[in-house]
Amino acid sequence: MDIDKYFISSGNLRLDSQLRFTAEIDKMTSVYRKTLLIDRSRCENDAEHSWHIAVMALLFEEHAVEKVDIRHAVEMLLVHDLVEIYAGDTFAYDTEGYKDKADRESQAADKLFSMLPPEQSSMIRALWEEFEARRSADARYADCLDKLQPFFHNIMTEGHTWRNTYSGKRTTRKQVAARMACLEDFMPEIHRWAVKAMDTAVEKGWLLDQ
Amino acid sequence: MDIDKYFISSGNLRLDSQLRFTAEIDKMTSVYRKTLLIDRSRCENDAEHSWHIAVMALLFEEHAVEKVDIRHAVEMLLVHDLVEIYAGDTFAYDTEGYKDKADRESQAADKLFSMLPPEQSSMIRALWEEFEARRSADARYADCLDKLQPFFHNIMTEGHTWRNTYSGKRTTRKQVAARMACLEDFMPEIHRWAVKAMDTAVEKGWLLDQ
Repeated sequence: MDIDKYFISSGNLRLDSQLRFTAEIDKMTSVYRKTLLIDRSRCENDAEHSWHIAVMALLFEEHAVEKVDIRHAVEMLLVHDLVEIYAGDTFAYDTEGYKDKADRESQAADKLFSMLPPEQSSMIRALWEEFEARRSADARYADCLDKLQPFFHNIMTEGHTWRNTYSGKRTTRKQVAARMACLEDFMPEIHRWAVKAMDTAVEKGWLLDQ
Repeated sequence: MDIDKYFISSGNLRLDSQLRFTAEIDKMTSVYRKTLLIDRSRCENDAEHSWHIAVMALLFEEHAVEKVDIRHAVEMLLVHDLVEIYAGDTFAYDTEGYKDKADRESQAADKLFSMLPPEQSSMIRALWEEFEARRSADARYADCLDKLQPFFHNIMTEGHTWRNTYSGKRTTRKQVAARMACLEDFMPEIHRWAVKAMDTAVEKGWLLDQ
């Protein structure tokens, strides 16, 4: 898709760069994840995932043990996966893919965010870096939701991504528990539900009991 | 899709209702709009549209003539189309569909938002009603982006939804200009670009010159 071929310039460089960025990020709709939509019709894409967790952020605040600036967390969630437009989605349990994930994503951020006027590029990059660092309460909240949403989709789709093998291996309870550990301290009520849901997942054979 | 069939209860009624709502709103991914994705691969859905304009809201503030609380506008944009899960998407130039749009959407809001704990239901409903009223600066900003995004997609896809006939009629410049009028006062720089883009659309035959 060649944006330049169809783009109509406004004659204003800033506005043009904002519109071009808007066109570029529409590519999030073709970055497909391993997670199924809850209706099981197909895998979800990054645009859908980002929207879904942003709405969740408006609703799950009461379960966080620290005070969270919801609206700031929403901003992070909206942009947290943008780098995947160039770096691709790295499957949660793909240990090979994770080896160079940080490098690939940092290069993607350089390329994508530089389309914007400098201060907007810095603003989006700061949101992404805060999310990636997972240190601030807002970033930890965002991270919990980013883990909870695909977990919940897996529960609602009888363990779809867990049952399927990637790199020839099925997913173990231990792997999923490690991924969900961020919720134990920060959203303990939801973590208790996740433990119960993992019990069910093992019983039903969706997760290996290892 | 029967949510109850696969849902695992947390034993906490509030958390259960929040998780069920999360499952229900995933249906936004199957509410398809007339607008094509910019890569033209298929029509976009409401989840993708909502995400796209929420990110745009982070970037286009400087073009608004009034002070806008961007984060509040983002909250509105995330939920503004949720009612379409039950009410369906009403095509912008479908005059028949618009006759009962308000009734259909109000009933949909009652049904959908009542899944949430009462004060969260009120919070989401208030965001939706503020957006629908289009009176506050934040709502006008949100409304402008909700009009700009499909307009921009149309420009990038050689007038896809305009060229196709719905109810047997092609779209006229006058119809599109009326829809984009909200930008004239509130985002004049972008409106100037839209006028230029409509000139091109008429020249290329994407819009009827009426």
